[in-house]
Amino acid sequence: MPREILFNAFVMNCVAHQSPGLWRHSQDYSLDYTSLQHWADLARLLERGLFDAMFIADVLGAYDVYGGSPAAALRGGVQVPVNDPMMLVPAMALVTEHLGFGVTANLSYEPPTIFARRLSTLDHLTRGRIGWNIVTGYLDSAARGVGERLAAHDDRYDRADEFMAVVLALWEESWADGAVRRDRAGGIYADAAKVRPIRHEGTHYRVDAIHLAEPSPQRTPVLFQAGSSAKGRDFAARHAECVFVSGPSARVIAPRVAAIREAAAAHGRDALKVFSLMTVVLGSTEREAQEKLAGYCELASPEGGLVLMSGWTGVDFAAMRLDEEVRHVENDAGRTAMDNITRADRDRRWTVGEVGRHVALGGIGPSSCGTPGQVADAMERWVADTGVDGFNLSYAVMPGTFADIVDQLVPELQRRDRYKRGYGEGTLREKLFGAGARRSKPS
Amino acid sequence: MPREILFNAFVMNCVAHQSPGLWRHSQDYSLDYTSLQHWADLARLLERGLFDAMFIADVLGAYDVYGGSPAAALRGGVQVPVNDPMMLVPAMALVTEHLGFGVTANLSYEPPTIFARRLSTLDHLTRGRIGWNIVTGYLDSAARGVGERLAAHDDRYDRADEFMAVVLALWEESWADGAVRRDRAGGIYADAAKVRPIRHEGTHYRVDAIHLAEPSPQRTPVLFQAGSSAKGRDFAARHAECVFVSGPSARVIAPRVAAIREAAAAHGRDALKVFSLMTVVLGSTEREAQEKLAGYCELASPEGGLVLMSGWTGVDFAAMRLDEEVRHVENDAGRTAMDNITRADRDRRWTVGEVGRHVALGGIGPSSCGTPGQVADAMERWVADTGVDGFNLSYAVMPGTFADIVDQLVPELQRRDRYKRGYGEGTLREKLFGAGARRSKPS
Repeated sequence: MPREILFNAFVMNCVAHQSPGLWRHSQDYSLDYTSLQHWADLARLLERGLFDAMFIADVLGAYDVYGGSPAAALRGGVQVPVNDPMMLVPAMALVTEHLGFGVTANLSYEPPTIFARRLSTLDHLTRGRIGWNIVTGYLDSAARGVGERLAAHDDRYDRADEFMAVVLALWEESWADGAVRRDRAGGIYADAAKVRPIRHEGTHYRVDAIHLAEPSPQRTPVLFQAGSSAKGRDFAARHAECVFVSGPSARVIAPRVAAIREAAAAHGRDALKVFSLMTVVLGSTEREAQEKLAGYCELASPEGGLVLMSGWTGVDFAAMRLDEEVRHVENDAGRTAMDNITRADRDRRWTVGEVGRHVALGGIGPSSCGTPGQVADAMERWVADTGVDGFNLSYAVMPGTFADIVDQLVPELQRRDRYKRGYGEGTLREKLFGAGARRSKPS
Repeated sequence: MPREILFNAFVMNCVAHQSPGLWRHSQDYSLDYTSLQHWADLARLLERGLFDAMFIADVLGAYDVYGGSPAAALRGGVQVPVNDPMMLVPAMALVTEHLGFGVTANLSYEPPTIFARRLSTLDHLTRGRIGWNIVTGYLDSAARGVGERLAAHDDRYDRADEFMAVVLALWEESWADGAVRRDRAGGIYADAAKVRPIRHEGTHYRVDAIHLAEPSPQRTPVLFQAGSSAKGRDFAARHAECVFVSGPSARVIAPRVAAIREAAAAHGRDALKVFSLMTVVLGSTEREAQEKLAGYCELASPEGGLVLMSGWTGVDFAAMRLDEEVRHVENDAGRTAMDNITRADRDRRWTVGEVGRHVALGGIGPSSCGTPGQVADAMERWVADTGVDGFNLSYAVMPGTFADIVDQLVPELQRRDRYKRGYGEGTLREKLFGAGARRSKPS
């Protein structure tokens, strides 16, 4: 029997995540991003639709590669202003019971002890519904914000490895099982003999401290990763339990999914869940869906798309003509981002303008537009062709895209037995990987 | 007409804040500290009682001076485990409208850009109800957790000054008034010409970045400070809008309040609000209150009190006899903490055991026990004798102490016209300092 398809909602604490320009749409409420009620409503909606998780992206700098300044990003509200993603979680957790919350957090600029406590706190408060998307950052503007230049790509992953060693030790080893007694009669909160300091002397971090938080339901948050470079893939193979992939065609996704699963298996880890980026536009008829899409495309900002693409690749597209053909980008990370689009169809040539228009509606991922039946067909085909476990669903309009998915697409997939009819019990990890699931370590 | 008395609730995201041992009490629910509902209920209670703010303390290390290890702290749950304070705020803000939230955050270990965005995010989400208690840390265990030794006291304040310069620039100067347009028709989110990078090259920080968050209702959170050393007092005089003082008698508090107001006035700042630590035990009769207090004292842990005092002073009280007289502590910060108690009554000698018992019920502050009328009398007298504006109210039991205050003491103070009958409009700063109030800068 084919497996159930998993759904993440892919959002960001800002006005324009992966659909720049659409905050102007009459059906879009992204301007409410500073309202707790806005996020609480979204969480309730997603839980009604049995989404596995809401996934909150983040950046720590402005997109300033395009035109050599953040002006275009500011003008279009393109991922700037951007607020802290973690602060949304407690309010959304209060009004939901099962929805998971994945938060993107850059590990490059904070002591591991303080970061580990923050994540443990969220895991406690959500009763074990926290995931962490491990990122090392790609924006030089973020590094300049903390008085550094962006570290070379491979160095970032070396630091990440060391950071992971420390936080995993804090989460898994500082407090032994059974350390917490909560013994009212005996007056003993914790058995001090079962709590030990984590000592680490490394290249980037020195630590000598007990973890300040007692063990949370999951101890370690469910680990997400999106690395697509060689180093990133190796990092994901060793650490990630869930992996994000993005690209506009199954042809570019399929071999990458296979490679990630193979690399993880080589570390003795075979329970990986892979999510593919997609934007869905639904209508009760094909025509209604197409009209909706046309309305979105009218307001989607190609310049905003190029602002994003310039940040991802490090190439200033403002310096190129819109009808100029995009060629290979000459740096590692940039090439990967660009290949995600241009390799999709090897026979096709992409102009700068086409890239901008593509990215302006759903980022690097594909769009699927049609009736619930048509979109469900496309999803089933995509899953079969790529081997992914589910989708990381971008929105065109907030929260309309998700409301359409919940009300129209989810019932269709349920009819096909490709979507859950209720949440499983337990933590986010147990919901994703089965009762009693624990973090799968590299062998 | 005498002014209204202000109320802060003084809490911490842990099992035992300033009443170690009392988590064992049958009426205490501190063990629920990892539950969002627990905190949401507390916030609703405090808002019903028209509290000005909930104030959340924090430490970044375990109390391990006592006995040279964190064992006693862990055994008694004395401020360890301790979870991140900020993560509680969004959930509590969702279920309240007026209550302010003061969060303690140590500025020593995080880049100012990332910290500034986190606070801006909270100020947005709470609609301008955020305060920040600026601390530099006093626990060497916290420094060891981030690979450092605790900086010398004065050096910590030098770093704090530089940190403040950066975050204030980010909050107040990066986005000009009117920079945010949100112009749907014109497609302009922000006027890029009105957003400028903050550039700083200092001893401890280098920054070159725009603030990632657009201006929040208060821009700068209401700034709280508790420094009582010379450097700390100077820092408070230049930055703080609210100041915490603590000591068990009006005699020790009064000159300190006067000194702080004088120092602030010397910087052209005269609108300071000063809060005095106090623990209140209420009963409908004096006997009922005394019986309640006796029940608390039975469970309060003198060892827990000494664990705290050892951390505050840097003196290991486990190495002393309980009947030994406490003499002056030989380091600056430690002497200040100890003087808070021992100077209260110059003719009295304090033994180690007495210090532990005192601190175990409300920390360094005084307790006031009696009927609502008696406690209101004590508070009015305290305000008259010390010149403080209100109280930072510690709890004996959670949330019972606050429930008693809301249901019994608040109505009594209202009858005396010493307590508000409804919240003022606007942000936390406007509620505290009047409509249109802005941050008062040092001249």
